[in-house]
Amino acid sequence: MGNGNGPILGLDIGGTKLAVALATSAGTVLAETQAPSRATEGPEPMIERLADMARAVVSEAGCTIADVHAIGIACGGPLDPQRGIILNALNNPGWVDVPIVDRIEKALGRPAVLDNDANAAALAEHRFGAGRGADDLVYLTISTGIGGGVIQGGRLMHGANGNAGELGHISVCVDAGRRCHCGSVGCLEAYCSGTNIAARSLEAIAAGEASALEALEPAAVTAEAVAAAVRRGDRLARRVWDETMLLLGGAVVSIIHAFNPSVVILGGGVTGSADLLFDPVRTIVGERAMPWLADVVRILPAELGERTGTLGAVAVAIDRAESAVEP
Amino acid sequence: MGNGNGPILGLDIGGTKLAVALATSAGTVLAETQAPSRATEGPEPMIERLADMARAVVSEAGCTIADVHAIGIACGGPLDPQRGIILNALNNPGWVDVPIVDRIEKALGRPAVLDNDANAAALAEHRFGAGRGADDLVYLTISTGIGGGVIQGGRLMHGANGNAGELGHISVCVDAGRRCHCGSVGCLEAYCSGTNIAARSLEAIAAGEASALEALEPAAVTAEAVAAAVRRGDRLARRVWDETMLLLGGAVVSIIHAFNPSVVILGGGVTGSADLLFDPVRTIVGERAMPWLADVVRILPAELGERTGTLGAVAVAIDRAESAVEP
Repeated sequence: MGNGNGPILGLDIGGTKLAVALATSAGTVLAETQAPSRATEGPEPMIERLADMARAVVSEAGCTIADVHAIGIACGGPLDPQRGIILNALNNPGWVDVPIVDRIEKALGRPAVLDNDANAAALAEHRFGAGRGADDLVYLTISTGIGGGVIQGGRLMHGANGNAGELGHISVCVDAGRRCHCGSVGCLEAYCSGTNIAARSLEAIAAGEASALEALEPAAVTAEAVAAAVRRGDRLARRVWDETMLLLGGAVVSIIHAFNPSVVILGGGVTGSADLLFDPVRTIVGERAMPWLADVVRILPAELGERTGTLGAVAVAIDRAESAVEP
Repeated sequence: MGNGNGPILGLDIGGTKLAVALATSAGTVLAETQAPSRATEGPEPMIERLADMARAVVSEAGCTIADVHAIGIACGGPLDPQRGIILNALNNPGWVDVPIVDRIEKALGRPAVLDNDANAAALAEHRFGAGRGADDLVYLTISTGIGGGVIQGGRLMHGANGNAGELGHISVCVDAGRRCHCGSVGCLEAYCSGTNIAARSLEAIAAGEASALEALEPAAVTAEAVAAAVRRGDRLARRVWDETMLLLGGAVVSIIHAFNPSVVILGGGVTGSADLLFDPVRTIVGERAMPWLADVVRILPAELGERTGTLGAVAVAIDRAESAVEP
């Protein structure tokens, strides 16, 4: 890609915010910025604002665009990372078949690469966060939805067309499970995403189960509100939460059996309730995973927080450049 | 490893038979033999017989041991492929902490490597069988138990300590599922292995469900007998089989979401009833898998049959040698 020592631009296209950082290949952020996505504007105005943000960040760091080694872009999928096309960004309506890599390369004049946000986060945690030094790791983000990214032998696992690691859609209940918006049945996401923790609580209330959550507007019954109710001893919230942890823990056991990682990193909004989450998940893994797999795996919280998206995009650019020089 | 053009010895240590083949790196078998395992004798006499079989095969092919490029060994796990130790071969009682690579290298005087039988089969189908040309594939053997092997980017996925791909132990029913002999709950194997297809049928008979299978001795109620009863229109057998296919198909969907393979290969004894198996599994994948993943995957029967073990062992030796010369 040339200019091998230059800093890397990381562009994070989210449903609520756009974020840009300029960072060194060691993950030191030189300058950064963010702005609301204003997703209803559609892709073209958003891409123009994103390019403006990138130029401002480069300038703020005392650099010029020509100094930039490469650009990484992270976005919700599905997307085609090899062709650099966002196929249908589920979190940004109207982003259908957007050739984002081509658009950004034309706007900024530097080489760009694309991957989905969960893969980007896995790469960032591997390179700069909780997974430093672990060559085989699985990252799981438990947020509005559930996404995953898998590092095997120090490299991102791509699969046949760049969509490996859709771990929110492994089924924890194949027979007669909850229908998932993806079209499948019993997906982990259909139970344990923030959206579905809230939905399952509201369904229990609608079915007549008593809970202090009844006093809230339905829109206020979030996963965070359910966790807060658990801490106050609410019985319905506790039942929903325990079931959530059983299913999440069971899915982590399946993930450990499938990938044999040395680290499983859990990130995303729902892990904000870490005190209620890591102990039960670790307990289920201890009870259920094969000992020769359980013995080598640690289950850790993500470390990068707000910078996951931009440092993820930076890590995508580094990983792709390194993979390209291998035989 | 030296002697790069020489043939490769493949040693397959099974619970019922020992098998040895000498093959070229293209998978052409030059000579082969097999014998009953006589597993009750314990590891040492079995290893001696295995070495004798290897010498006989090399001689039959008109070669000497010095001509042999390398030796691959395939065995049921758990094992430590890096250290070359069989930790606890579940199909061969008494094989605990057996340093098989060291023993074979001393007996035959050529370098040896070890991997588990499902990984070996995945490598063999990738190199010589149904997965030729597919760089991202998953192999699932559905037999007495259920094992898996994963090829990613043309290389076997090892995981942190060589135990990746334990796909029989992804859970299809995390909450209140059948207990698996591995210690977990709701494992694919706990429903869909040959042993468990038979066990579930016998449990249904014991619970009073009517079936022509009642006329058989319990030991004769095998997965094959259940499949035969399905073909004769037996209602219990049909119910058990349909449930099995739903759970197997659902697990294949999870596998597709996790690994994004271009080929899923199903092998092992239960796939002998191919006419009852591939259509329902493909139907469930078509109904449930994300289209951008389902569109790129083919679900195929294994091709290597009886030679899976020995050609698997050969493929392990080739893969390990090739991986070693990469950076």
